[in-house]
Amino acid sequence: MPAYNAFYAQSGGVTPVINASAAGVLQTAAKYPEQINKVYAGQDGILGALYENLIDTSLESASDIEALKMTPSGAFGSCRYKLKSLEIHRAEYQRLIEVFKAHDIRYFFYNGGGDSQDTAYKVSQLSESMNYPITCVGVPKTIDNDLPFTDCSPGFASVAKYVAVSILEASMDVASMSSSSTKVFVMEVMGRHAGWIAAASGLAADHRGLGPDIILFPEIDFDQQAFLAKVDATVKAKGQCSIVVSEGAHTADGKFLADSGVRDAFGHAQLGGVAPVVTGMIKDNLGLKCHWAVCDYLQRSARHIGSKTDVEHAYALGQAAVELAIAGKNAVMPTIVRTSNSPYTWEIGHAPLADVANVEIKMPADYISDDGFFITERCREYLSPLIQGEDYPSYTNGLPDYIVLKKQKVTKKLPPFEVS
Amino acid sequence: MPAYNAFYAQSGGVTPVINASAAGVLQTAAKYPEQINKVYAGQDGILGALYENLIDTSLESASDIEALKMTPSGAFGSCRYKLKSLEIHRAEYQRLIEVFKAHDIRYFFYNGGGDSQDTAYKVSQLSESMNYPITCVGVPKTIDNDLPFTDCSPGFASVAKYVAVSILEASMDVASMSSSSTKVFVMEVMGRHAGWIAAASGLAADHRGLGPDIILFPEIDFDQQAFLAKVDATVKAKGQCSIVVSEGAHTADGKFLADSGVRDAFGHAQLGGVAPVVTGMIKDNLGLKCHWAVCDYLQRSARHIGSKTDVEHAYALGQAAVELAIAGKNAVMPTIVRTSNSPYTWEIGHAPLADVANVEIKMPADYISDDGFFITERCREYLSPLIQGEDYPSYTNGLPDYIVLKKQKVTKKLPPFEVS
Repeated sequence: MPAYNAFYAQSGGVTPVINASAAGVLQTAAKYPEQINKVYAGQDGILGALYENLIDTSLESASDIEALKMTPSGAFGSCRYKLKSLEIHRAEYQRLIEVFKAHDIRYFFYNGGGDSQDTAYKVSQLSESMNYPITCVGVPKTIDNDLPFTDCSPGFASVAKYVAVSILEASMDVASMSSSSTKVFVMEVMGRHAGWIAAASGLAADHRGLGPDIILFPEIDFDQQAFLAKVDATVKAKGQCSIVVSEGAHTADGKFLADSGVRDAFGHAQLGGVAPVVTGMIKDNLGLKCHWAVCDYLQRSARHIGSKTDVEHAYALGQAAVELAIAGKNAVMPTIVRTSNSPYTWEIGHAPLADVANVEIKMPADYISDDGFFITERCREYLSPLIQGEDYPSYTNGLPDYIVLKKQKVTKKLPPFEVS
Repeated sequence: MPAYNAFYAQSGGVTPVINASAAGVLQTAAKYPEQINKVYAGQDGILGALYENLIDTSLESASDIEALKMTPSGAFGSCRYKLKSLEIHRAEYQRLIEVFKAHDIRYFFYNGGGDSQDTAYKVSQLSESMNYPITCVGVPKTIDNDLPFTDCSPGFASVAKYVAVSILEASMDVASMSSSSTKVFVMEVMGRHAGWIAAASGLAADHRGLGPDIILFPEIDFDQQAFLAKVDATVKAKGQCSIVVSEGAHTADGKFLADSGVRDAFGHAQLGGVAPVVTGMIKDNLGLKCHWAVCDYLQRSARHIGSKTDVEHAYALGQAAVELAIAGKNAVMPTIVRTSNSPYTWEIGHAPLADVANVEIKMPADYISDDGFFITERCREYLSPLIQGEDYPSYTNGLPDYIVLKKQKVTKKLPPFEVS
């Protein structure tokens, strides 16, 4: 059996550990030279395949590939470009197959969230109907933690650790100062549709009164009166209040708190930011001194405080993707299967892409407390193992040794293509 | 010579390493039992002395005191209460002396910024005029890095490391996604009057194009046209642009960009936030997709990414404060003296409180590039050694083992006192 090339691409919002999955794919592929010749990475995700912008990963040094394990962001570039249905984007799917043919690519590893797994599934279908034998394996990734079948999605756990550590630290700051200064701190985290990231901040809450006092989830309709009453009661009881708010927090009519249409003095529309909205509400109604922070990209790139468990998951899933492909499995996605909570143990499973595609996992209702402002013990049991362990990058001159790859391109063989 | 008690308090905004200075004071004081009996810490800074809320640090375990070295915030509580002149606040100064007399306190260690050093100086003056022998030594601290005589102020270097690492990571995120998504990222950092913290972000900039492309300093009047032209040129040249803006950025008329008087849809005044203002400006004028973050307290409590150099400075200054007092020095503040840039070496010096009080050190003009949007090589040479080395806290269950002290109070001996 001759060896064929493989295609690997990173898709959607990047994470602190997607490059660890890349390292898993590349280092494992190198162990099967009789099946896999070279791995070509797409420059900027699937666009790299469509534009025939292929990066020859065999030209990267072994140490640089190893350094991917500790490097955040998408080392090959990612993209927000979404392949639509086969009917609408047939030309794009056909182009993919043409590029794969031209470069002798018979393995397709697609590292992304729900949409990307759907794309991987469609490619597998098309290859069948076009009679081009390509093995498609998805590699799960999303900080949103909303992929089905897998116990968690790589990337989420490191973001979870970042937000838990950050609110722990900030709540200690507020506790130090609250007798004569700031009484309320509001931290905004990601999560447009699901409160997983906001929920993770609850891990910082302990018997000493540290961590967040209130969490605002997108799953719970925001009730201003109940919220202000809770803030007021918290400040009266303990002298200060720390709040974590999900960017997706919204009122019962579905209106995002962040979409408040503010304009500044220059007349510019202000972009989102639910933390300042919530803060203004507290200041106006309760007259308390507040501070607020918006984590934004800092949370999803914070590899400096990456979860060791997350890094291990991400690497193992990249590795498993290649092993599944070598074993002849097609149209599947490796998954994390939790085998025990305490001590935390896990193994790798896999699920058919047909079932993964377009299924979004929500937070279970019993993960949120009855008053809607905190997580339950059950939620804590699920989340706690995920942030275990630290996996620090190496540093030079006080800064992490994050790697930037050489990204040398494969010579193009096809005419240019324009995406629709 | 009989042993007397010492008073120690934390003042002003807390930092990732002020507790390391506390550990330096407490562990060093314990080495001089013939001179120093107990160290009483003020609950919530100087208010603890005024209200006679004294914490008996001898009742804390040695391991808890040791854990202060890795714990952010102010372990004994801090305050924003500022003692004014002897004329205005004479009753308060006299109360301090009364409390010191009542509790046999003859050493006064005050851990804070410029205002606090001024207070320490006034206490030393008053003790002289009231003929109560108390040795006053300041322990420098401020993330603003604006204290005179000392090469840097403890706390600043850890914030510097946090912002440099954070913008490095976020800029990698943007670089991954910019071909099809976000092109501009804006990160807001502290620094109302001085751009030291914003400047530190420049350390992340390297030959690979990572880190910030533009830094907005409070030292430079904001020029919207020049700024937008720079953003536009940067995005055209490299496909994306990362920006760090100091909260103190202002126009030539002195108006803070953050004070734009915005109101949200609920009619609430929005608090500050210069990052969304700058972002709105870019979006409206250049039509680029932007993201923004506001670090706020996260930056000054981020002990998880503390600078080892900073922790060593902070501890050494606490230690030196006690040693200076034992050596009979009064009304002084220990300082960091840089003896070499490369390799970085330093030693402890000291300066008279009379000269320290109310002097604010600004960034030298030659630390900012000619176009006003970046730091110079000279600035980098100054800043770089400060962020060297990592000093990680220990972790349990994925979270740092930050300590919360028992804070047992000394029995009160005086009638209550109300501050004016």
